[in-house]
Formats: sequence, C-alpha cells, structure tokens
Amino acid sequence: MNYKMIRYMLGQVVRTEGFLMLLPSLCSLLYGEHRHFFLFLTMSFLLISGGSYLCWKTPRNRTFYAAEGFVMVALSWVFLSALGALPFWISGQIPSFIDAFFETVSGFTTTGSSILNDVEALSHGMLFWRSFTHWIGGMGVLVFVLAILPMSGGWAMHLMRAEAPGPEVGKLVSKLRSTAKILYGIYVALTLLQVLLLCAGHMPLFDSLLTAFGTAGTGGFGIKNTSIAFYQSAYADVVISVFMLLFGVNFNLFYLMLAGQVGRALKSEELRYYLGIVAAATLLIACNTLPYYEKFSTALRYSFFQVSSIITTTGFTTANYDLWPGFSQCILVLLMFIGACAGSTGGGLKISRIVILFKGARREISRMTHPRAVSAVRFEGRVVENDTVQKVFIYFITFMALFAGSVLLISLNEFDFTSTFTAVAACINNIGPGLNIVGATGNFSQFSAFSKLILSLDMLVGRLEIFPMLMLFSPAVWRLRKKE
Amino acid sequence: MNYKMIRYMLGQVVRTEGFLMLLPSLCSLLYGEHRHFFLFLTMSFLLISGGSYLCWKTPRNRTFYAAEGFVMVALSWVFLSALGALPFWISGQIPSFIDAFFETVSGFTTTGSSILNDVEALSHGMLFWRSFTHWIGGMGVLVFVLAILPMSGGWAMHLMRAEAPGPEVGKLVSKLRSTAKILYGIYVALTLLQVLLLCAGHMPLFDSLLTAFGTAGTGGFGIKNTSIAFYQSAYADVVISVFMLLFGVNFNLFYLMLAGQVGRALKSEELRYYLGIVAAATLLIACNTLPYYEKFSTALRYSFFQVSSIITTTGFTTANYDLWPGFSQCILVLLMFIGACAGSTGGGLKISRIVILFKGARREISRMTHPRAVSAVRFEGRVVENDTVQKVFIYFITFMALFAGSVLLISLNEFDFTSTFTAVAACINNIGPGLNIVGATGNFSQFSAFSKLILSLDMLVGRLEIFPMLMLFSPAVWRLRKKE
Repeated sequence: MNYKMIRYMLGQVVRTEGFLMLLPSLCSLLYGEHRHFFLFLTMSFLLISGGSYLCWKTPRNRTFYAAEGFVMVALSWVFLSALGALPFWISGQIPSFIDAFFETVSGFTTTGSSILNDVEALSHGMLFWRSFTHWIGGMGVLVFVLAILPMSGGWAMHLMRAEAPGPEVGKLVSKLRSTAKILYGIYVALTLLQVLLLCAGHMPLFDSLLTAFGTAGTGGFGIKNTSIAFYQSAYADVVISVFMLLFGVNFNLFYLMLAGQVGRALKSEELRYYLGIVAAATLLIACNTLPYYEKFSTALRYSFFQVSSIITTTGFTTANYDLWPGFSQCILVLLMFIGACAGSTGGGLKISRIVILFKGARREISRMTHPRAVSAVRFEGRVVENDTVQKVFIYFITFMALFAGSVLLISLNEFDFTSTFTAVAACINNIGPGLNIVGATGNFSQFSAFSKLILSLDMLVGRLEIFPMLMLFSPAVWRLRKKE
Repeated sequence: MNYKMIRYMLGQVVRTEGFLMLLPSLCSLLYGEHRHFFLFLTMSFLLISGGSYLCWKTPRNRTFYAAEGFVMVALSWVFLSALGALPFWISGQIPSFIDAFFETVSGFTTTGSSILNDVEALSHGMLFWRSFTHWIGGMGVLVFVLAILPMSGGWAMHLMRAEAPGPEVGKLVSKLRSTAKILYGIYVALTLLQVLLLCAGHMPLFDSLLTAFGTAGTGGFGIKNTSIAFYQSAYADVVISVFMLLFGVNFNLFYLMLAGQVGRALKSEELRYYLGIVAAATLLIACNTLPYYEKFSTALRYSFFQVSSIITTTGFTTANYDLWPGFSQCILVLLMFIGACAGSTGGGLKISRIVILFKGARREISRMTHPRAVSAVRFEGRVVENDTVQKVFIYFITFMALFAGSVLLISLNEFDFTSTFTAVAACINNIGPGLNIVGATGNFSQFSAFSKLILSLDMLVGRLEIFPMLMLFSPAVWRLRKKE
C-alpha cells in the first residue's frame, strides 16, 4: 500500500470538503442563523487546516495499483461522510451520530433515504448542507479534486475509474483534468438552468436551488415533509421530471452534443433503451393507476414523475405510490434495479450493464444451439470485449449476493418482507424511498442503529459500484507491496 | 429437427404414463371408487394404445443434437402434464382444465403448489395419482424410459443431461441404461424404507405411501388440508425431515456408499455445505422463534422440519411460518433460492451452483488485486473448467431475468408484493408454498387463469433447469437441420 499517497489524497479530499462547507455557512449567515453560521465556519476552518496539514508534503512516489485506487476512493467517501455528519450532530439537529452519519452517507451517495420525521424542522443552513452533499456526491468528489488540482500521470485514471459509474470509463479528451472540468462544467450549467426554470415557476429561490441540487445528483432529499408534492404544481413536476431524466443520461452524450455531434449522441443505444423503458413504464403505470385519478393526463403526470424519479434513482415523490395497485409497484421495484445510464449521476445496475447481461446471456444460449458458431456481444455499435462482459457478470452476481446478505441482516428488525426488501433495494441502488414502512410517506427512523450502519454500507457499495468497498475490507489489498 | 425421433420419444413417454396410470386405477378399485377406477382404466388404455401407435415405427435416424434433446424433454413434460391433468378434469374433481393442468404440472415438477381449497374432498384414486406424479417427476420421466427400454447410442446422454438437475452430469457406470437403473433402484429402496418407518409410527399405509411419494420427489403435496401438521406426531415430523434431507442429497453419493466408498461420499464438498446450511438455518430459526414455543426442543423440531422442507424444495408444512418473525421468514426465502444438491430430486439453484457462483466471483475479484495471478475455481477437489463456470453464471442471470419477468406478470393480480414475489419464487424453485396469500395455510386458487399458466411455465422452467424450456420457444432450434 502506498500509504503516503493515501494520506495525501485524503488530505485533499478533507480540505475540499472544508472549502465546500463555506457555502452552507454563508447560507446560515443570510438567514440569520448565527449559531449554525459559526458552527459551519469553525468546521470549515478545521477541515481546511487539517486537510492542508495532511497533504502538506507531496509524496515522491505517486504511483499506485488500481486496487489501491479503489481503496483510496472508498476511504475518501467514508471520511467525507463521517466528517460531513458532524454539523448535524454537533448542532443537535440530528441528536444521534449514527443517524447523522446515515443521513450524510445518504446525501453523498445521492441516495436520499432519510431518518428525519420532520425535515422542515432543520435550519436553512443544515438543509442547504444536506442537499449540497447530493450535488457534491453526484459527480464525484475525486473527480472534483482532479478538476481543480494540477495532477498528471496515468494513476489518476485509476481514481476516476473507481469513482465513476458504469462498466467502462473512457476519457473525453486526452487530458484527464480537462475531462473532469468538462464534466463539471456541464453539471453546473444544467443545475443553473434548472434553478432558473423552477424560479420561473414561482418556486422560492432557496427551494429551487436545493431541489436542483437533489435533482442534479439524482439524490432526492426533499426539503418539505411531503417532498415535491408540497408545491402542488404541474409545471414544477414536469420540469423536475425532465431534469431527473437529463441527469440520468450519460454525460458523454452532452459533451458530444456540445461538440456538434448531435446525431451521433442521439444514436446511442443506451439512450434509446433508457427512453424506451421510461416511456413503456410511464404508459403502463398511467393505465394501471387510471382508476385512482380523475383524468388520464393526471395519471400520466404522476406516473411520469414517479418513473423518472425511480429509474434515475433520485427518489423525489409527488404521489403516495404505496396506495397504487400491485402491478405499478412491481414496475417501480424493477426500475429500482435497472437504474440510469452509465456515466450519469444515477445509480442502480445501469442500463448498459442490463443490456450487456442480456446480450451476453443470449449469446451463450445461442451457442447451445450452434456450438461451433462464433459470435460477439455488440453494444453501441462496437464489439464488447469478453473481459468486459465477464466483469458485468461478476458485478451482477456480487451485487445479488450483497443484496441477499443485507436483506437477511435488515430482516432482524422484524418488519414485513416488502419493507425489508425494498429498504435494502432503495439503499443499495441509491434511490431513497421503498415501499410500506420506507415508502413515499415513510422514512428510515425506525431501523436499529446496526441496520442503519449496514444500510449506510449498502449505499456506499452502490454508489462506488461494489468493488472499491470490497477492496477496503480485503486483507490481500492491504498486504500489497509489502512483498516488494 | 429430427421430427420422427421426437414423435417416437413422445410415444414412449405417453405409453409409459398410461402404464403408470394403472396404479391409481388399482387404488380406486381397492377403495371401491368405481367411477374413478373406470376413468383411470380407460385413460390408461387410451394412453397405452395412443403411445404405442406413436412409437410403432422405430426411426432409422436416431441421432440428434443436444438442442433437440432439450426440446424433446421439454415437449415430453408439457405432454405428460396436459395428459395427466385429464383424470382430474374429466372426473370433475377439479372442474377447470387450467386448474387441473396447474395441479399436474405442480405434481410432475415436484413443486407441490396447489389450487385446491379442500384437498381432503378428493377421492383416494385422485389423491394417489396426484402424489404419484411427484414420485414420477422427481427422478425424471425420461430417465425412467431409459431405465426400462433397451436403447443405445450417445444421444441418450443428451436426454439425461436435459432432464437431470445440476450443472454437471456424470455417468455412474459406463452404460447409461445401468446408471438409470441404479438411480431408480436407490429411489425405490429409500421410498419403501420411508413407508415402513412411517407405518411403524402408526400412520395409515395409504397416508404413509402418499407422504413418501411427496417426500421422495421433494414435491410436497399434502393429502390433508393442514399438510403434515395433521398428524401431530413428533416421530413422523423427524422421519419426514430426515428423508426430505436424504432425497435432497446427490444420488451419486448413495451409489458411492453402496459401492463401499463411504469415506469418499462423506468428503463431498456439496454435502458439507448442504448440511452446514441446514444446521445454521435450523439453529437461527429455532432461536428466533423460541418466544413462540414453550420449549427449545419444540422450536427446534418445527424449525428443522421447515428448513428441511424448504431447502430441499419439498414444501410440506407443520407450522404456520407466516406467523413467525421476519428474520425467520427471510431465512426461508433465501433457502428457497439456494435449493438442494445437484443430482438429487430437489429444485432451486442447487448448492453446487451457489458454490461455483461464489468461487467464480471471488476469483475474478482477486484478479483485480493481482492481475497477473492465474487461479482456477476448484470444487469437489477438482478444477472446474471455465466453460462450466461460465454456464453457471449464465444460468443464474437467465434465472433472475425469468424470475423478474414472472414477478411483473403475476403482479397483475394486484396482490401484495410479498405474495407475488414468493409465489413466483415457490413455483420457479419448485417448492410449493410461499408467504402471505400463498403461505403455509394458503394456496394458489385466487390467481387468474393467465397467472396460473405463467406459474405453470415457471415450474417447468425450474424443474428442467431453464434451457430446455427456452429452446422450446426458440425458432433457431426448430430451424435446425432444415439447411441440411
């Protein structure tokens, strides 16, 4: 293990978090919440100085293995969450540290599962920080560090691979730092555009900004107890639905569009499957819930919002879908596992993985009929290497194993099977709400402290796509280099 | 497609079913149920003559591809079930043909899911035939045909591979016909032993015989409305528990023991995992359900029975586990998917597949840490070929896809998620009961006719291990040889 490099990167991450905390402190100041202003400012100061101390000395040996990159990213996220939970805890707004940690992990991993029974009781500063963690976590913390720090060398790619979602990570441009900057540029621009559109619909600026944070990161923390249903606005519903879908699209496609290759971007196979699934699910649910609403257009509006919210793993709600018929609920549970596109801020298994799983399985089955035929899995017009297909298989198998194990541990709470099953599904896929106890109107406050820790781990496992978290607990990785 | 060979094999299967129907007709005669005696006798006569007509001419070209073998087995099972449903339907004991078909598929696939609200209303002859389908389906119909017919050629292996459960099928002895005979010999001997032991515990002969049929096939049709709980006998509970476990063991191990290699048989890795999981699950559930029972021994008795019943995918019940705590229920749901050993009469994914899945995933993950290390998956002391590991992966992925699709279709019934989820799990894993509506005291009568057909397909998919049923619906397979 290159411990010096780990120390250095952790320092960078902690310092960055300190700087980012200046924003909620500013928010507290604006709203005259002086106690929270000073709290955030002190935290900010401590994190910046502590982080700067850690990364004072740039290590000479900057190389590391891919496995070490995984560990680095996993450690960064655990640190980030533990430190980010402090303001909630110290201010007493979330009295238990486990609860504050759960809430912050849920924020950074863009899950949006909450343990708060009364969100509206939080101060403006705390609400800002809570939603801001979604925005930070959506694009990735280390991508942010890479975007602002002058770093070079192939090793940085290891970090980006470990943090970015999806089975394959390509560079947009030859320089990694430029890629990171372009990604953050698109991210900021889209977020601002959403804020503008929401404000245009008479949503207060504070609410618009925080809702945009939750949308951009596909997080889903609501700042009202009834989430987006509070605003009772068809306009806001549609704007948020569309932006949720946009943030669930592979950011590379936006870059292609900016570069003038709109046609090539629209030809993306993943995009087509994504939009196809959204359209089919929306229509099916609208038809199925028609008896619950007066008009088809109303059913369509709620159905479109909920489908967009779940498939992009955001988790905002406008309707209490716990009252919907079983078929609609079942579609939503399936969408939970499918997830958004690779390279977006969304979670879940990702459309591209699902497509590769299906195509890979189909190829093997057709081999049974024609044993001598040689065929390749093709995706996005290119041949997918067998190694990639294999990794997707392993990803799926490991995912299901972790999922099953978590369901077993969470069932110790003695809730009904549906609640247990969807609570784990909502956390490991970074969605937010599930069904029954953790449904649209429920939250995670009733779970035991042990369960909250397991679910926090599940959220991190889901956001970092399993392997970084597994490596963190693998003795073999920690033994690396000792032999050398 | 070698249509002549398919016709010939179907004829053999139909004729065999006709002969097997002589037994329930004898049972009807003994109990003075003359109407049913004549019904079974007529059916028997028609099937024997029809089957004999179909297989009158032995086809000259007896070769076929593996894919055709799959189709042959799948078709045989569909025919077998459709024809086997006729007595229930014609006698009016099950008035709807879809219901009768569901019940018969559930019998032959050794699932044990029932649509009957009052099992005890059936005549003795019908009860006999219903349980007897379990016994026939457990070891396999084509294995039976292979055991009694003088056939030769490597092609017969294709049939056995398609029908036998587990990732790998080996021959016990050099001749396939002898292998089939040995398997059936062990099967008959164990069944008779169980009948004797149950009779010794004062269970009536008729009940003992039918319970043994249900145990041997790991089927689980109860002949009382309260299943095994009816007998209120700790002795019967233990005997049935132990025999369920025995029939969930790979039959090759019994053959090894008969051949004097007891040590080698006991060293089986799969057996150890199997017994380990049973022991762990039994203890966990016994501790978890302790508050529900007076003594630990009582909790242990019910827990042991239920664990054995679910992991071997039998599905007998002695306790209403719908009232058990969530943790116990969750363990049972997990066991549903694990299933029994390969080469047994049990269903589910099978222990050996689970082990290979885990070992295969672990190898790939350790490759991330040590990319240059070459390691193989080892099982039962031998290296598992990559091709086999790959097939297990594909099996799991296809299984999960079919499972998810079925859950979606069954959710159209608008039952709660737990009922829908466990109904599909119980059918595709050939278990029988699930939770809630289809729980220990429930049944499948409330499902729509469409759902019953889907669940029947799921049962066949589970029993024949997916691919034979998939091939049946694959145009590519039906086009085979047309080119030649």
